[in-house]
Amino acid sequence: MSEEKSYHMTPEAFRRYGRAVVDWIADYYDRIESLPVLSRLKPGQVRAALPSGPPVKGESFEKILKDIDEVILPGVTHWQSPNFFAYFPANASGPSILGDLLSSGFGVQGMLWTTSPACTELETHVLDWLVDMLGLPAKFKSSETGGGVLQDTASSASLCALLAARERATGYQCNEKGCVERLIAYASNQAHSSIEKGVKIAGIGRKNLRLIDVDDGFAMRPDALAQQIRQDREAGRTPFFVCATVGTTSSNAIDPLPAIGEICRKEGLWLHVDAAMSGTAAVCPEFRHIHEGMELANSYCFNPHKWMFTNFDCDCFYVADRKVLIQTLSVLPEYLRNKATESGAVIDYRDWHIPLGRRFRALKLWFVIRHYGVEGLQYHVRRHVELAQEFASWVEESDHFELATKPPLNLVCFRHQGGDEFNKRLMDRLNRSGDLYLTHTTLSNRFTLRFCVGQTNTEARHVAQAWRRIREAAAKLESE
Amino acid sequence: MSEEKSYHMTPEAFRRYGRAVVDWIADYYDRIESLPVLSRLKPGQVRAALPSGPPVKGESFEKILKDIDEVILPGVTHWQSPNFFAYFPANASGPSILGDLLSSGFGVQGMLWTTSPACTELETHVLDWLVDMLGLPAKFKSSETGGGVLQDTASSASLCALLAARERATGYQCNEKGCVERLIAYASNQAHSSIEKGVKIAGIGRKNLRLIDVDDGFAMRPDALAQQIRQDREAGRTPFFVCATVGTTSSNAIDPLPAIGEICRKEGLWLHVDAAMSGTAAVCPEFRHIHEGMELANSYCFNPHKWMFTNFDCDCFYVADRKVLIQTLSVLPEYLRNKATESGAVIDYRDWHIPLGRRFRALKLWFVIRHYGVEGLQYHVRRHVELAQEFASWVEESDHFELATKPPLNLVCFRHQGGDEFNKRLMDRLNRSGDLYLTHTTLSNRFTLRFCVGQTNTEARHVAQAWRRIREAAAKLESE
Repeated sequence: MSEEKSYHMTPEAFRRYGRAVVDWIADYYDRIESLPVLSRLKPGQVRAALPSGPPVKGESFEKILKDIDEVILPGVTHWQSPNFFAYFPANASGPSILGDLLSSGFGVQGMLWTTSPACTELETHVLDWLVDMLGLPAKFKSSETGGGVLQDTASSASLCALLAARERATGYQCNEKGCVERLIAYASNQAHSSIEKGVKIAGIGRKNLRLIDVDDGFAMRPDALAQQIRQDREAGRTPFFVCATVGTTSSNAIDPLPAIGEICRKEGLWLHVDAAMSGTAAVCPEFRHIHEGMELANSYCFNPHKWMFTNFDCDCFYVADRKVLIQTLSVLPEYLRNKATESGAVIDYRDWHIPLGRRFRALKLWFVIRHYGVEGLQYHVRRHVELAQEFASWVEESDHFELATKPPLNLVCFRHQGGDEFNKRLMDRLNRSGDLYLTHTTLSNRFTLRFCVGQTNTEARHVAQAWRRIREAAAKLESE
Repeated sequence: MSEEKSYHMTPEAFRRYGRAVVDWIADYYDRIESLPVLSRLKPGQVRAALPSGPPVKGESFEKILKDIDEVILPGVTHWQSPNFFAYFPANASGPSILGDLLSSGFGVQGMLWTTSPACTELETHVLDWLVDMLGLPAKFKSSETGGGVLQDTASSASLCALLAARERATGYQCNEKGCVERLIAYASNQAHSSIEKGVKIAGIGRKNLRLIDVDDGFAMRPDALAQQIRQDREAGRTPFFVCATVGTTSSNAIDPLPAIGEICRKEGLWLHVDAAMSGTAAVCPEFRHIHEGMELANSYCFNPHKWMFTNFDCDCFYVADRKVLIQTLSVLPEYLRNKATESGAVIDYRDWHIPLGRRFRALKLWFVIRHYGVEGLQYHVRRHVELAQEFASWVEESDHFELATKPPLNLVCFRHQGGDEFNKRLMDRLNRSGDLYLTHTTLSNRFTLRFCVGQTNTEARHVAQAWRRIREAAAKLESE
């Protein structure tokens, strides 16, 4: 094809090396259980293995792939290992990886409808599907007043919710002059750190975020919320935003949406619901109760890149009134003007998030939903919850361990009765073993282990083995 | 391997379908010139071809791939076509697509060093390489006071610059109480729309962004900047931030960094330099003058996903003083605490941008630099500039067309002498033909065509053919 000198990879080479990379990934998953889950490298070891400057002349793909094995792999913590129980899952799957590969191949920019209509329309369509799949109110559909958009993370989605709420509360005056002071946001003291980060970014001021007390199950106390709002109003401040969490990061607590939503409705506050991991559970009818009260919410997000087998990044962000979001984030320079936008008949997703450019992310989500079907997604999510509940029952039956709180879904918070220092040493020892990876939090001022079941290939045998390893390591520590 | 019932794609199926997708992409590039560059679909056509609800049972991969051809492809605007001359390029390449594929396969979260050391260290390392490759001052390296981080887009990077500048200017008080009012930001009236968007997001207020006049070449006038700063100080306002552009979106104008930087230095303002597309040109020594004055900048960004053969998303954002950025964006909840972070010996990139989670983006950039070598990148960037300059010379020699401004690099702004309405119709006709895609802007209040050479596979013959089509279409319009 080419008439000119070229350094580009030839189409033949792309086919050959493409197969090599596909096989590399398949081989990686075949052997992933033989690798230590948490990387054992020390700071600086990866960099020390890399040349200090870039190559002047191009290198062969074989050489690059060899370095993946020799330099990169030892520095990887294996999030896709079935023995990964740390943080929240970031599960991936074959159809998702291949959907994402196609997205890279297309290399389109979906900033405007006109710059790739399929990129926008598939996204709108699949996000409408998910409203039904999760039992969310119809107002979040694009066919009603709302609509969904893919964002990179729940952090960014929550920031957009906060911005839209800020603009609504100030009559869009933040766009005109500096933001009014004394706006007050609310979340439970268990809400994700991204809410604090968002409040900082939006110029609200960290001191204007109220962290509301929680009940024994670590869920927000509506009475404490109502009281704080009253106090702030009395002090002449302007409450404007509440973030409720469906499945907190620490302990998976589920804030009582109906009561919180009722307060927001009465007070005229924007209610954002962050269901980053746990939203996916609602694909199963028996867990759909977590979304009870969603008809009172103004915005919502959950991450298929956590628990819905769709590789990062893929956060679904919904608003009940898309006009507010668009008015908050829209800027229209001449070089982006076009007939489709001016007709008003299309969605331009650049006005729904912070970046301008955007890749064709909907492909991977569409691939996942079609490959698994609703039935397949339900099966695996249900199975993860069963496995976590089984683990929790073992903890309960044990003489040495106890649950820190009753696990509602797939995250078990527990601890050895030996105290904080013992639990810290237990966790470090387990993670250093490479057999599994789990992380911690603090609940009721006590060091608490978190065991989250959600990686794609985690099965009964992995959970059983983890429990065995935990008991063995604890027994050894006890005897030391 | 699996003992349990499973809906997951088997490893064998992943290998088979992985090859199918690799081949699909290779075939796509083989035939891309036969496809109309700008999608011809009307609003709603993609959605009309999709089922109204998600499938209950999973579907075969063959069926999904068939829909890529039948439903998705007609709705794609082919950004990777060598006949794509619109907006800015978003070029991709074989090594980049395969690096991104590996990133999807690993599926790691690089939010903390400890969650995958290689993800962080490769990124730091490659971004240090690029400081040398682009002739940027050493202070932007991680080994000095600064450092680089990958962000999704220049919009997000510029927002982070704005936030860091805001916090520095207010003594980090935005984190404590609502932001002080009367902060003033500056950019030329040709700066990218993301600056206005960022000012809105950060709660600075749109009215507190001053759009400074430009000279005949559409570059910011330092005298006008200095005067505006003086006026604002006299009115009791607080100037804090200047965004200079190296290669504006409209016309590729290059703001005079040395003079602007000197003003910022004297006035104590944060200077951010947005070189989203054009920064890549500096890989060639003969274009490195665009970075003259960079020693006076506090932050800088450019997008390998525009012109450096690295598929979206990949923006490189640098700061001269990483402490300010980290202090602006850091929030540390218990569940993210870990020994490596507490040792202070590692970078945790979650504190360098808005999201918490992050994929292993550095892989694709590393693959590109290694595959091409500095020499290969220089060759293709240089070639794009040559082709654009050749196109410009044809415009200059033509009796019917004229340049709107002298093109510094790879973007040619030109127009037919027939006036705004004629140029609009000419552009619409060309884009409807499917043979090429170009977009417009307004310069000196006149409708202006933009012809940007930067797609990976664009060669002399594509540029020559485009010029032929443009002349033919104009001649036909003239005769109507």
